[in-house]
Amino acid sequence: MCSRPEPPEPLRRVAVVGGTHGNEMSGVCLARYWLRAPGELQRPSFSAVPVLANPAATAACRRYVDCDLNRAFTSAFLTARAHPDDPYEVTRARELNQLLGPKASGQAFDFVLDLHNTTASMGTCLVAESSHDVFAMHLCHHLQLQSPELPCRVFLYQLPGEESYSVHSVAKSGLGLELGPQPQGVLRADLLARMRALVAAALDFIQLFNQGPGGRDGLRHQASHTGTAFPAFEMEAYRKVSSVDFPRTETGDLAGTVHPQLQTQGQLASR
Amino acid sequence: MCSRPEPPEPLRRVAVVGGTHGNEMSGVCLARYWLRAPGELQRPSFSAVPVLANPAATAACRRYVDCDLNRAFTSAFLTARAHPDDPYEVTRARELNQLLGPKASGQAFDFVLDLHNTTASMGTCLVAESSHDVFAMHLCHHLQLQSPELPCRVFLYQLPGEESYSVHSVAKSGLGLELGPQPQGVLRADLLARMRALVAAALDFIQLFNQGPGGRDGLRHQASHTGTAFPAFEMEAYRKVSSVDFPRTETGDLAGTVHPQLQTQGQLASR
Repeated sequence: MCSRPEPPEPLRRVAVVGGTHGNEMSGVCLARYWLRAPGELQRPSFSAVPVLANPAATAACRRYVDCDLNRAFTSAFLTARAHPDDPYEVTRARELNQLLGPKASGQAFDFVLDLHNTTASMGTCLVAESSHDVFAMHLCHHLQLQSPELPCRVFLYQLPGEESYSVHSVAKSGLGLELGPQPQGVLRADLLARMRALVAAALDFIQLFNQGPGGRDGLRHQASHTGTAFPAFEMEAYRKVSSVDFPRTETGDLAGTVHPQLQTQGQLASR
Repeated sequence: MCSRPEPPEPLRRVAVVGGTHGNEMSGVCLARYWLRAPGELQRPSFSAVPVLANPAATAACRRYVDCDLNRAFTSAFLTARAHPDDPYEVTRARELNQLLGPKASGQAFDFVLDLHNTTASMGTCLVAESSHDVFAMHLCHHLQLQSPELPCRVFLYQLPGEESYSVHSVAKSGLGLELGPQPQGVLRADLLARMRALVAAALDFIQLFNQGPGGRDGLRHQASHTGTAFPAFEMEAYRKVSSVDFPRTETGDLAGTVHPQLQTQGQLASR
């Protein structure tokens, strides 16, 4: 990983998005909280904007209403002519593209954090588009160093030749936080606290970056960053190799399940 | 608890119902399995019928489509004239009432087991309408004795003066099995195995009852039941005292959650 995160300019326009999936409650509840009390998202050089991405799915406590919002930020959906029969999430993706983008334009937000939960026992997972998002990679490295005792893996979701489609792909740089295990529609205090701490650490990192090695932004530079503020590093990252479905009957019903000795042992099994 | 479970006649018409709530996967998967392979539900004196109660909600992996099926078995819903705008679950309740009832009639099924999951960490909970269902109380006692090392509490759901409304209230006697914790839409092998064993034990008990103290049903009576086959007993049972909601904001959003030290500790905390 190179030593200068891109973009070189300070990040002023930052958003923290919850409720992209309406039944992943850490982000839903944090977004609602920050919409009432946004002070926690303020730093000296910027104020992050809280966004509840999918209000209809959140109200219904479902992942989505018509289709997955976190797959709807493709140019085909974003640029097609609007139609009354469009799926709710396609319309909402266009609204968010207006708010946080337009995607791939100079007017787009500098950074978007997108908050997710999973029922899988995978601890903390940092979901970036690709390693080409150098700023996101430096942020991942920073978050891993903050809590070295906790599993905090980096997953690069974009496949070769594939167009990006996530909420945070609308911004110039972005990262998804995926915390588990948490049942859908359920709020666990431990994951809520972990999510909140990760967001705070991410915003602190953006503040640190905005200050820069030479005291950019008029703020005094922290004494510990006298040389290159963000040195080069190596890191482990995961990519999708393939999908393995459960065994199924001819009609598609489950014909098997995770073995009891493996269930909830994801963090151990993958070590 | 009196010593003679009612009804005094053998139970011939028995149903095991899964998928009353479409995202409670132990019962959904077991009902689908038994619909393909019903042999596991056969006993010498009867064959239990597997029923997938809410196919539309099960297909959508949601608790329900329009309204809660397990609250729809009231005389108001069951006897009202059918209308094209009726909620799906009201129509389905009438169909199930035809299949398993009619409720409170001599033609109703003798016994219905209804399979549920909860996200709460409450182990096994046996949900009966009231202690007046003497057969169900004897069955609960039997199930508790089968696995004394596992928490297996009895909950009496019907409030004084309240009409029964559950799926199993359609039958002459019935019991709900509520197993947790399991996320909605997720299948855990340990709870699946526990549910399957509980159903087997319940069917074995019905078989034992059908045999009777004097070898009723032409089957030889087990040596251990030479006097009264089902002696009197005392048991602990729970009733609903009140509902305690989470603290909420003025707009109804969550303003608190379960403390991390109490989360998933339900089995310990209630001891």
